[in-house]
Amino acid sequence: MSIELLTRPTREPLRPGPAQLREVRKALEDRFDEERLLVNADRRQAYAQDWSSAGRHMPDLVVKAESTADVQAVLAAATEHQVPVTPRGLGTGKAGGALPIYGGIVLSMERMNRIEGIEVADMQVTAGPGTVTGDLMRAVEEQGLFYPPDPNSFDICSIGGNVACNAGGPRALKYGTTKNYVRALQVVLPTGKLVQLGQRTAKSSTGYRVADLIVGSEGTLGIITQVTMRLIPRPDAVETALVSFANAVRASEALTAVIAAGIVPRTLELLDHHALDAVRAKTPGRFPDDAGAVIILETDGRTAKQAFEDLERAADVCTAHGALDVLLAQDEAQRKRIWEPRRVLSVTLRETAPRKISEDIVVPRSQIPTMLAAVSRIGEQRRVRVAAYGHAGDGNLHVNVLFDDSSTERADAAVRDVICETVRLGGTISGEHGIGLLKRDFLPLEQSEDLMGVQRALKATLDPHHILNPGKVLPPGVSAP
Amino acid sequence: MSIELLTRPTREPLRPGPAQLREVRKALEDRFDEERLLVNADRRQAYAQDWSSAGRHMPDLVVKAESTADVQAVLAAATEHQVPVTPRGLGTGKAGGALPIYGGIVLSMERMNRIEGIEVADMQVTAGPGTVTGDLMRAVEEQGLFYPPDPNSFDICSIGGNVACNAGGPRALKYGTTKNYVRALQVVLPTGKLVQLGQRTAKSSTGYRVADLIVGSEGTLGIITQVTMRLIPRPDAVETALVSFANAVRASEALTAVIAAGIVPRTLELLDHHALDAVRAKTPGRFPDDAGAVIILETDGRTAKQAFEDLERAADVCTAHGALDVLLAQDEAQRKRIWEPRRVLSVTLRETAPRKISEDIVVPRSQIPTMLAAVSRIGEQRRVRVAAYGHAGDGNLHVNVLFDDSSTERADAAVRDVICETVRLGGTISGEHGIGLLKRDFLPLEQSEDLMGVQRALKATLDPHHILNPGKVLPPGVSAP
Repeated sequence: MSIELLTRPTREPLRPGPAQLREVRKALEDRFDEERLLVNADRRQAYAQDWSSAGRHMPDLVVKAESTADVQAVLAAATEHQVPVTPRGLGTGKAGGALPIYGGIVLSMERMNRIEGIEVADMQVTAGPGTVTGDLMRAVEEQGLFYPPDPNSFDICSIGGNVACNAGGPRALKYGTTKNYVRALQVVLPTGKLVQLGQRTAKSSTGYRVADLIVGSEGTLGIITQVTMRLIPRPDAVETALVSFANAVRASEALTAVIAAGIVPRTLELLDHHALDAVRAKTPGRFPDDAGAVIILETDGRTAKQAFEDLERAADVCTAHGALDVLLAQDEAQRKRIWEPRRVLSVTLRETAPRKISEDIVVPRSQIPTMLAAVSRIGEQRRVRVAAYGHAGDGNLHVNVLFDDSSTERADAAVRDVICETVRLGGTISGEHGIGLLKRDFLPLEQSEDLMGVQRALKATLDPHHILNPGKVLPPGVSAP
Repeated sequence: MSIELLTRPTREPLRPGPAQLREVRKALEDRFDEERLLVNADRRQAYAQDWSSAGRHMPDLVVKAESTADVQAVLAAATEHQVPVTPRGLGTGKAGGALPIYGGIVLSMERMNRIEGIEVADMQVTAGPGTVTGDLMRAVEEQGLFYPPDPNSFDICSIGGNVACNAGGPRALKYGTTKNYVRALQVVLPTGKLVQLGQRTAKSSTGYRVADLIVGSEGTLGIITQVTMRLIPRPDAVETALVSFANAVRASEALTAVIAAGIVPRTLELLDHHALDAVRAKTPGRFPDDAGAVIILETDGRTAKQAFEDLERAADVCTAHGALDVLLAQDEAQRKRIWEPRRVLSVTLRETAPRKISEDIVVPRSQIPTMLAAVSRIGEQRRVRVAAYGHAGDGNLHVNVLFDDSSTERADAAVRDVICETVRLGGTISGEHGIGLLKRDFLPLEQSEDLMGVQRALKATLDPHHILNPGKVLPPGVSAP
């Protein structure tokens, strides 16, 4: 018996030449005025970088779409002239997914930011992909509903970007990530075809789950022009506590015990001592001085009593597992004082070192203490600061390597150590940021050549001309279904 | 500007000829003894039908796999000799997905039924695809954990089949369908390649979500040889009530109001008067005589108090919306008396008429009363009995057309009316049974030619020889990404 293999090498994307760019620009000028087709370098600048450490990559052209038809027109022109198109939400991605590394067109969705409808009885919201996630959250909360996924950038990131990266956030612990809330997507495929994916119903088993394939594909398989997201009833009661520990390993043992006790708080956010040091330097007095690590523990429920009971039980488990102190927020102002340093932690850490590489690893929950011990050891061995914080209740840690130009090699080695340890513990290299450009070359550490081959084949099927966000997610190689 | 289209007609599957079958049988005999390679017609009989009304389709050969390597060997032989392979869990599908309509090999997963591990701290279970879902449920419940999706066939269906069809069940209202619980899948692709899909972690944004594409693909894209499912803490308190109404439209108005009040019971199961009549004939005294429809309302929680408070609130809303009566189950025996007729309702209804066609439609929750009124009208107009029952809280209704051989045409017309009304109301033609064979030709009523073309292209990519479960899910046509 033999298995016939259908393999084909994937095409290397190419930077478009001057003639191609001239032609595509001419085609686009028919449709877009100078407010929406940016040609001058100074206006394109803002689209050359994102929130990652992946550097600057200038697009040759920037188009601001205002409609699905705009997106179709751009893709049609790009296909005709073989010019790459890199879709961009609000540019807050941390893996470089929105950077036009081969030049070409950046297609910005920032103007497609309208909340098109909140259907209360059906508990869903339909919005343009450029809608700020926080705007969407507040709009549905006014109607008694709730959109749970809360990336820390929620006030500046877009819902379309959230879908493209399968964004998470602290509340994913209880409520899951963006993928759990996608009902229907309107998507323009690289060939310009418009398809309605998913269903606007509570459940469905109708045909292949193509919408779920678009989720997390980081703009490489299609461009989302409208999202319909599932909502839940707004939990009106929230209780928040700050729990201190001697160190991050002790904290992680306690949070593993909380989950094992059958309690599902809405957040179990960890900050290790490097993270605490940075917060203390910037906003003194927020966190207890004797803490070597803290957990932000938050519960919610329909009634204050339910939320408080759950908080109390979780706090008791923490105390039984070595918590030094539990501070309960008494009002909204105190709750904000606890959360605010966490929400801006990524920025705060960046200010403490000339350079920072931010990883987004996930390990099985049972391996969190082991992973945190490993992070500490790697920092010592490689002589760089390695801060760990984040959604530890989910096993999802933002591991930040902080360094200067003199220690680039040691920092890179530390990053690789972290990735290798993650994979060794049965983990995955991204929990919510995506692979983009920065983690692309780590993918083979986690995934088999066959699995990457399957994904390359899916990419080639949906994007036969390889014009959509080239060079992202998958390292070049062989496509073999 | 023009868009270049890459279209290709999909291949029509062919029934294998005697020479092919001889060759493939020879190849399989090297590996499988006569206990596992069924050749005689009398032993193959049991694999010629499932729980659908799609008739008998005899396989030429039946293989009982015991390992992933077995599955790889069967697919390699099938690819080499171009013989179709139809994977089969425990044969309880309702859309004909497991029927070998072009003959060839039925690959039964019934022996791959081992629970391979329950990881308590990581809240997940790993099992063979042939594991009975109820066995898996009970095993994890013993460890204080809970697997929520509960198709009514849970005691006789397989977890692999559940994943393949994205099965639901009453508790999907609160907990979602099978797709929400899939972490990782081991899948053999039609070419014989083995891939590990998904991640064994609480969250991930690493590469394309190929596991999610396999979910609900009904064995047409790959064969699942191992599943790792997410679990949740076991909710120890459950409260159940039987709520009576004058008719199904009133009942559906009440359940829409319960959800709108921000209460999420774990079930809101509806039985209309046709369903009640069938139950009363078989097991008198279970449901109140004056009810024209009932809802089985069930809540759960960590404490009895929480579950009871939610039940009480939901019952109050029902009473305010015209409920005739609320009967609260006082113990487990009473709870069973309420549920038992519901669990066997599909069988009970089948006994009331020579023939039955079972649909599995979903409408947006706000449209349930409209849909129920339409179902009643369609029954009258077409002069057939049309029973509606099921997971009404999710908008998911099992609409059963009951008829005899003299009214086949009217029954078919009624089915088509139901499907058309579903689509007109913004619904979808399957909530949890899948498309399989029976609903395949209705797919174009809901989905565009472009969307079906995309799915055909994905199928052609993963199954280039079209050997895996041919003729299912997608009607033949043009593949156009």
